[in-house]
Amino acid sequence: MAGTTTPDPDFEAFYRIVHRRRDVRGQFTGAEMPEGSLERMLRAANAAPSVGLSQPWDFVVVRDRGLRADFKTHVLEERARFAEELGSDRREQFSGIKIEGIEEATLGLVVTYDRSRGAPHVLGRHAIADAGLYSVCLAIQNLWLAATAENVGMGWVSFYREEFLAHLLGVPEGIRPVAWLCIGPVSHLETIPDLEAHGWAERRPLAVHTDGW
Amino acid sequence: MAGTTTPDPDFEAFYRIVHRRRDVRGQFTGAEMPEGSLERMLRAANAAPSVGLSQPWDFVVVRDRGLRADFKTHVLEERARFAEELGSDRREQFSGIKIEGIEEATLGLVVTYDRSRGAPHVLGRHAIADAGLYSVCLAIQNLWLAATAENVGMGWVSFYREEFLAHLLGVPEGIRPVAWLCIGPVSHLETIPDLEAHGWAERRPLAVHTDGW
Repeated sequence: MAGTTTPDPDFEAFYRIVHRRRDVRGQFTGAEMPEGSLERMLRAANAAPSVGLSQPWDFVVVRDRGLRADFKTHVLEERARFAEELGSDRREQFSGIKIEGIEEATLGLVVTYDRSRGAPHVLGRHAIADAGLYSVCLAIQNLWLAATAENVGMGWVSFYREEFLAHLLGVPEGIRPVAWLCIGPVSHLETIPDLEAHGWAERRPLAVHTDGW
Repeated sequence: MAGTTTPDPDFEAFYRIVHRRRDVRGQFTGAEMPEGSLERMLRAANAAPSVGLSQPWDFVVVRDRGLRADFKTHVLEERARFAEELGSDRREQFSGIKIEGIEEATLGLVVTYDRSRGAPHVLGRHAIADAGLYSVCLAIQNLWLAATAENVGMGWVSFYREEFLAHLLGVPEGIRPVAWLCIGPVSHLETIPDLEAHGWAERRPLAVHTDGW
């Protein structure tokens, strides 16, 4: 079939979104979400592939100011802990880097992993224990690109302890929080990653091997 | 700014791709990849977000027939092992489900995780050991959607042991294979997931909680 080797007409639109996407910290405006956007984003996440079609994810929308303030306090403590591990040059550099937009974003979205979903025989998970966790990440990337398509920013905060976040939100035993995502309208998306702008890290070229390492 | 709350004009194209994407097993034609498509897909993967901008992924393109035959033999052994765990009803159902297209696809693509990249101080990984692994999955989802945009199929095979695959491809110590992806032109993409068509699992509605579980 000729159609099978012709790129989808939507493909340029897709690549524009992929390359425009940023991990947002500092550009949140706090404005309300565009109408219908959160629902469309969540439906995109729920349409992600998952091992054994287990869809092991849940989504917790956090708008409450008190919960966000408590989470931010915890994140700042973890930030300080990380800073202590650094040498003085790196610590100086790190001090200027914003790592979260928990209170400035319009909402927080916590994505969790429920290992019991579809158990005991999740097709495709018997040999790879982490496969369900991988599925949750695929859903998160759908969210991220959907946010970009909606002209909304998203940033993944990872300076926290899972137990703290699980307790804060009353997540049941056995279910793991995988991400706290800051989401909301932004003034703009930067064209280069923050960590590159701050000289912390540089983007790497593609690493491709053929028929073995 | 008005622009920040208006959906990107590309957003409908993006959602069409998200909802058209399938985990392909049986529809590969073996035809050559559309010109430039693999390169565009890999660039999309390399543009995925990663913890501390570590981009801890490598890509191994496997076209060699011998390597693919060896991998398939291993996968069929793991399939048999999984089948043994099942009760008779589930085993009967499983026997009709195709789990891979290793030899029919145009190529295999193995994605790996290098924990040492950006170490010792990967910004955002000190509190969450798996964060680097999460990044690799985000890159895989970019690949998956890019494949769909290119009108190419992709299927994630997870019936294998990491050590087997690492040894087969000569992946260095300390680097983990995260996925074997079957990629190539397809006759068509199914409209519902194979596991749903076979009655193995059903797609779940969205699970959303607000301000706590």
